[in-house]
Amino acid sequence: MLEITFNLREDGKVPYYVQLYRHIRQEIKSRHIPSGTRLPAIRRLSEHLRISRNTVETAYLQLISEGYVESRPRSGLYVVELEEDFSLSEEQAKQTVKRKVAADLKPKSPNIPEVRCDFRHGTNDLRHFPFSVWNRLTCQTMQEHSSLLSFYGDPQGELSFRIQLAQYLRQSRGVHCSPEQIIVGAGTQQLLLLLCQLLGTERQSVAVEEPGYNGAKAVFAQLKFQITPIPLDEDGINLEFLQRSGAKLVYITPSHQFPFGMILPIQKRLKLLQWAAENKGLIIEDDYDSEFRYQGRPIPALQGLDTRGSVIYMGTFSKSLSSAIRVSYMVLPEPLLEIFREIKILLEPTASLIHTDTLEQFMVEGWWEKHLRRMKNIYQKKHAHLLSLIVHYLGARVRVIGQYSGLHIVLEVLNGHSESELIRKAIENGVKVYSTTPYWINPDLESPPRILLGFAKLSEIEMEDGIRLLQEAWA
Amino acid sequence: MLEITFNLREDGKVPYYVQLYRHIRQEIKSRHIPSGTRLPAIRRLSEHLRISRNTVETAYLQLISEGYVESRPRSGLYVVELEEDFSLSEEQAKQTVKRKVAADLKPKSPNIPEVRCDFRHGTNDLRHFPFSVWNRLTCQTMQEHSSLLSFYGDPQGELSFRIQLAQYLRQSRGVHCSPEQIIVGAGTQQLLLLLCQLLGTERQSVAVEEPGYNGAKAVFAQLKFQITPIPLDEDGINLEFLQRSGAKLVYITPSHQFPFGMILPIQKRLKLLQWAAENKGLIIEDDYDSEFRYQGRPIPALQGLDTRGSVIYMGTFSKSLSSAIRVSYMVLPEPLLEIFREIKILLEPTASLIHTDTLEQFMVEGWWEKHLRRMKNIYQKKHAHLLSLIVHYLGARVRVIGQYSGLHIVLEVLNGHSESELIRKAIENGVKVYSTTPYWINPDLESPPRILLGFAKLSEIEMEDGIRLLQEAWA
Repeated sequence: MLEITFNLREDGKVPYYVQLYRHIRQEIKSRHIPSGTRLPAIRRLSEHLRISRNTVETAYLQLISEGYVESRPRSGLYVVELEEDFSLSEEQAKQTVKRKVAADLKPKSPNIPEVRCDFRHGTNDLRHFPFSVWNRLTCQTMQEHSSLLSFYGDPQGELSFRIQLAQYLRQSRGVHCSPEQIIVGAGTQQLLLLLCQLLGTERQSVAVEEPGYNGAKAVFAQLKFQITPIPLDEDGINLEFLQRSGAKLVYITPSHQFPFGMILPIQKRLKLLQWAAENKGLIIEDDYDSEFRYQGRPIPALQGLDTRGSVIYMGTFSKSLSSAIRVSYMVLPEPLLEIFREIKILLEPTASLIHTDTLEQFMVEGWWEKHLRRMKNIYQKKHAHLLSLIVHYLGARVRVIGQYSGLHIVLEVLNGHSESELIRKAIENGVKVYSTTPYWINPDLESPPRILLGFAKLSEIEMEDGIRLLQEAWA
Repeated sequence: MLEITFNLREDGKVPYYVQLYRHIRQEIKSRHIPSGTRLPAIRRLSEHLRISRNTVETAYLQLISEGYVESRPRSGLYVVELEEDFSLSEEQAKQTVKRKVAADLKPKSPNIPEVRCDFRHGTNDLRHFPFSVWNRLTCQTMQEHSSLLSFYGDPQGELSFRIQLAQYLRQSRGVHCSPEQIIVGAGTQQLLLLLCQLLGTERQSVAVEEPGYNGAKAVFAQLKFQITPIPLDEDGINLEFLQRSGAKLVYITPSHQFPFGMILPIQKRLKLLQWAAENKGLIIEDDYDSEFRYQGRPIPALQGLDTRGSVIYMGTFSKSLSSAIRVSYMVLPEPLLEIFREIKILLEPTASLIHTDTLEQFMVEGWWEKHLRRMKNIYQKKHAHLLSLIVHYLGARVRVIGQYSGLHIVLEVLNGHSESELIRKAIENGVKVYSTTPYWINPDLESPPRILLGFAKLSEIEMEDGIRLLQEAWA
């Protein structure tokens, strides 16, 4: 154990050794010092608490004589195993270890069968993560740029990393930006929070797609923005509704609408930009998984089509590399950039310098390009396979929405069941699928239910198993 | 290079190969595709843009014939070196590399001499960072818990990590909390932002120490809080002023006031808690570098003395381990925890799972304890050495404020010069010291100037050099 810290009363009423003995005994009884813990060496504790060694020794002897602590030869004093039930934290520690190993493949209760296939979204296919390269570059970063460890770094993200990002965004996504316009952060929500601060009090209302990403809406709601839902057409946000809403700010996922998956066509992108020009509007473009597009020509990001500085572009490495490293970015147009520069000096960075430096080297050495190309192929195959399985097993009972890109699809299920029935029947048959209801502000009760299926992590065999189970469940 | 993405016009007015040729030429001329870049293989680009290979080939041939691109045997097509001046991003890339290597040890302009000693604060002593252990554990995390990489993880931080943290905080800082009360985040500012959201609209004003940490005040200001500065006594915040201010929320650094460094004594801590009890007040306790205390007995955190749930405790690994990994935490009392639980499902985590998992293992294996003990000894020696150097070289011309803990000290300089004069004279003599003015809301113009000196990164020899230079500069 580390140290024992508490407030020694100095009024002379209770001897120090009694105070120390009582404190440690209480900590042991309440399981805050777990059994098996080694007590601090007498010398160290006496230095730490600025009391004599004799005082510590007396307190320790009392604990030994009362059986709370035992002496082990050539090792030290240890807290003994007590006979009551486990303390909260030990039990939790065990559960956590279990959770890490088995994730959610274990049955949750006796009534629910084992999950044989989980169409969870927001995951990556890890079998293809370049572990050895990443580990090597991480160690290299730590060694070569060891001074990084004591830097807070640029609150905007390191310039050299932003140079790589700008080049990637231009070439792959058609985003036109200089490294100066990029802000690196630990996730889209954190960047949205910052963005809203930059927008100031003039824009306190925002239009969002209905349905749309609830994580973004949560940020707006926390900041007390007025949120106006705008319905979707088959090809994305309904621009007439947007126009009529009077909104000056819209948050949108044009390249793979979340959750429905449609891609905003080029004509509509140009019209949206025109809306912004005519209404002094601002567009937040969340390009969260647009790296993975499987059909048709790549459409440049809205940001790349914009000439008036009315688009804030947001992207992330969560889908394309790893969500665990927490690296996202946004591209600001000039007026917002000016405001950012004013407050920049007072901002702490949020993304890990170790990860962004590793990522920079990963890009410089060409691994990022290779990884992305490889994952695009892998996901394209999985996506095509999943669609063919759906046709084969589920046929006319379902309709796939937004099937051209991304790492999830949406099934409109036409067998007359409700969304909750469909999900429950699936779970009872060992397959987890997900609700789209949380993404609505005013849930659509009239349309057939829509079910979300993520596929990034699943193998072709697992997918086939899963869709077969769904067929049985929904028969 | 990765990919070339742009919007092909399909109206038939301009042939595809001309559009492609023009686009690439423009990108080369504007340096967005730097010289030396390899163009994508014809096959790959044709697949990517969904145009024929012939179209790509024709565009490439045109670029070659015009001299923008050259063919290298058995390798591919490369953008040639153009003769104009460097593009912005290349120049910046070079500067960035330089910056990483030499940091700010280089002279900034011919008039300013080389910096021989930099008393920058907010850094760590890296010579003692356990690189090999940390690298080994990082790689182990990536391999053993590889599924972590595709998790977003618990928005609160992983429970197993929080269990370690709770134990550490209890034993080392006397903080009483369960792992459920801990929220892990990517920095104090990010956690303060979250906290302010939990506080809601009822508390929109906050009392802060004057002077105090400007990074915290920046968050409050961004959220439009009314900020009331409370003057400091010799032993920390003036409680009468706090009482009279009518504040219901106070942000405070009791264990090492920033920047002045005094330690709030136990009697005053109890009075502060009494203030909270009588006024339904809340206390944000920022314990940013309290691991390093060099004299007197350890005083438990305010949080540990509190029995009414009126303290929010904040801590960080930035000072004690590395600021680059961006891992901080806060401990919430029950009422705020309830509000957190309500919004938790919609929050993304911000700290890197890779780093927190590595840190967890670092703690489990006892390295954290060893590292902390070692650094405490090292910083204690440096601190004592710095104080003796100040007495020796600067003597009665200065007074040290808050000299019992932490990684920086403050010098009150009594030679009649202003703060800006002192800093300028120091720079002219090759030593960087820092202003305390930015930490004031209403700068104190009557007291002698106070200069901030961080010492964590400096060796004893560097410190001696630095203080000697200061003696010359301020003579």
